[in-house]
Amino acid sequence: MFQNRLITLLTDFGLQDVYVGVIKGVIAQVNPGVSVVDLTHEIPPQDLASARFCLMNSVSYFPEQTVHIAVVDPGVGSYRRGVAIKFAGGFLVGPDNGIFSGVLQHSPAQTAVELTNADYWRTFTPSSTFHGRDIFATVGAHLASGIELETLGNLIDPTTLIQLDLPKFKTINNEVFGCIQYIDRFGNLVSNIPASAVENLDWVVTVAQQTITKGKTYSETHPGDLIALIGSHGWVEIAVNSGNAQTKLQAKMGMPVIVKTEVS
Amino acid sequence: MFQNRLITLLTDFGLQDVYVGVIKGVIAQVNPGVSVVDLTHEIPPQDLASARFCLMNSVSYFPEQTVHIAVVDPGVGSYRRGVAIKFAGGFLVGPDNGIFSGVLQHSPAQTAVELTNADYWRTFTPSSTFHGRDIFATVGAHLASGIELETLGNLIDPTTLIQLDLPKFKTINNEVFGCIQYIDRFGNLVSNIPASAVENLDWVVTVAQQTITKGKTYSETHPGDLIALIGSHGWVEIAVNSGNAQTKLQAKMGMPVIVKTEVS
Amino acid sequence: MFQNRLITLLTDFGLQDVYVGVIKGVIAQVNPGVSVVDLTHEIPPQDLASARFCLMNSVSYFPEQTVHIAVVDPGVGSYRRGVAIKFAGGFLVGPDNGIFSGVLQHSPAQTAVELTNADYWRTFTPSSTFHGRDIFATVGAHLASGIELETLGNLIDPTTLIQLDLPKFKTINNEVFGCIQYIDRFGNLVSNIPASAVENLDWVVTVAQQTITKGKTYSETHPGDLIALIGSHGWVEIAVNSGNAQTKLQAKMGMPVIVKTEVS
Repeated sequence: MFQNRLITLLTDFGLQDVYVGVIKGVIAQVNPGVSVVDLTHEIPPQDLASARFCLMNSVSYFPEQTVHIAVVDPGVGSYRRGVAIKFAGGFLVGPDNGIFSGVLQHSPAQTAVELTNADYWRTFTPSSTFHGRDIFATVGAHLASGIELETLGNLIDPTTLIQLDLPKFKTINNEVFGCIQYIDRFGNLVSNIPASAVENLDWVVTVAQQTITKGKTYSETHPGDLIALIGSHGWVEIAVNSGNAQTKLQAKMGMPVIVKTEVS
Repeated sequence: MFQNRLITLLTDFGLQDVYVGVIKGVIAQVNPGVSVVDLTHEIPPQDLASARFCLMNSVSYFPEQTVHIAVVDPGVGSYRRGVAIKFAGGFLVGPDNGIFSGVLQHSPAQTAVELTNADYWRTFTPSSTFHGRDIFATVGAHLASGIELETLGNLIDPTTLIQLDLPKFKTINNEVFGCIQYIDRFGNLVSNIPASAVENLDWVVTVAQQTITKGKTYSETHPGDLIALIGSHGWVEIAVNSGNAQTKLQAKMGMPVIVKTEVS
Repeated sequence: MFQNRLITLLTDFGLQDVYVGVIKGVIAQVNPGVSVVDLTHEIPPQDLASARFCLMNSVSYFPEQTVHIAVVDPGVGSYRRGVAIKFAGGFLVGPDNGIFSGVLQHSPAQTAVELTNADYWRTFTPSSTFHGRDIFATVGAHLASGIELETLGNLIDPTTLIQLDLPKFKTINNEVFGCIQYIDRFGNLVSNIPASAVENLDWVVTVAQQTITKGKTYSETHPGDLIALIGSHGWVEIAVNSGNAQTKLQAKMGMPVIVKTEVS
């Protein structure tokens, strides 16, 4: 017997309003038995870069075939496409605005459709401001029930999916030049420099005119001291033991991060 | 075989404390297999008007027979009644203080009981400050298991249920006079003027001494510009493309909104 | 047939990042059918005292055999032990840093193991900063599936588990000296003086140089007035009807609370 796939939700809707609750109601109307996991609903409003980062760092921790619905959608109601995408880890459902480009960079799209078949929408006349409820929720619920991707709309060429152009790190001699791509709730600064760029080397990080030595765990420094390490998502991170690196360094998204490696 | 009904929760308990988690534990003690969806727990403390609005705009998106538990309860422990109500969309459980009056305005109560049968409470001596845990959670869980409403207490006349007296919009000639009844996390201003009052007409909105033209989607204006539209819940709304109308207009709950219609 | 046990999560990860969502994904990878309830993820970062208080006040409201995963973990990656503990109410999984000492004060540990068996971790090389994902999530999921505690690692002596030394209340003649041990989102001040210390007596509370009379429910005073009562968790609490006692009294965690009892 077919077992329901898991659904995840990632949005910028927040938890103050009932938008997220309503999406779950709509999913339950299609498929009362499906399980829904919240990735986060606290993406800063319309911040596609944070949404892309969060989704990219989440999908590999879920069971195969999971359906990831992501709705950060500044262009809702305009001509941007709604899409569903099959990739090795499962399915992606949401607006075609680059939100999935981080996931697909690591695990390419196998098939993609534009969501043109209104039989799988909540209504033939969806709200022009809330496709999350009227299109993506029901489409995701049907995918979780095992429907074929191809029934949801017209096949599209995955290479036409919108890419988010984010700055990339560059290695010049023994220096890696990157930037802060995410700041988490602890004030940890996540750079866009992956572990693979510095592996098996000793290194120091310079950010906000401070040079910080590589460590392994938050607690190996004194409380309040800065430490640089490979964070749990696999990027070079700057943290403060029992403190907040963002506040201490007055750091901001996009600020330059330089890793200087030494042959060990 | 009887299948569990879905339960939803709407409270002002927030997510910082364990109140909501504990309610879910109590529900699981009665009925380990039931699914619970959070509508929101971020209703401003004791703000019945926001609670009424949020619940009214949610219930139609859930499966029939869903059990909606709502606990914004400034009078807990006093003589206000606890009630369970059957309506076309399912069941409502909570304090009799007007929180359900928005739902029932659109879909009248079919049967209502006062929750007097302590056999269905968590304890015969409920906390005087937390009926959400000790009465409403277990009553809701029993309803989700399929118990008859009438076993939960004495039948009461639905016309005696408390109404929340909210301002109503008025139409005078070609002007509709209303007010802001809700502000969402994006800073969108939701008026109390329904789409039906302005349907098939062209109109402009005046709020905070600004006159704003009707549009259809956020993105059809320039970023930062005001737009008026029928929001996803079906009310006249004022928004800012990629911005915050509440901040831009220094708007507050209750502020007057005037829609001027033109014969199209 | 063995039925899945329920899992609860309590962390200081917040809901802004995807840490909590990822933990749920990892749990679903081990055990797709298990139900997970959030106790709270808004513990102030690394605040073990609040975490201990919240967990202590939650576990008795859950079904027997529930698996409680708690991750407030300032020492992650250092030499603090990871543990799983069996007690009358179910299981506790997390760091051995005192977070469980409130629960175990009321219901002693029956068996405890150090989590040394990496077969039940997500990976043999766990992140040095995120044991919640790489160790505690999978261990908790296996416990929910019914695995024996003893397979998870080496048995340890429960008396060696770390205790959190919190101030205790003292009774001197007819005065009980305690302090504020928790402040909830409504601004209610929860003291560390249990109902049992004042039961069947009349009493008044002094806090922040205000003397406050005992009442029974928030609503029996005028809006804005202070009231002292036995709160829903069973501690002497100070509240304001329709208001915020923390703000009104400029109260802080740890501030002295004195209850003066009178023979009734």
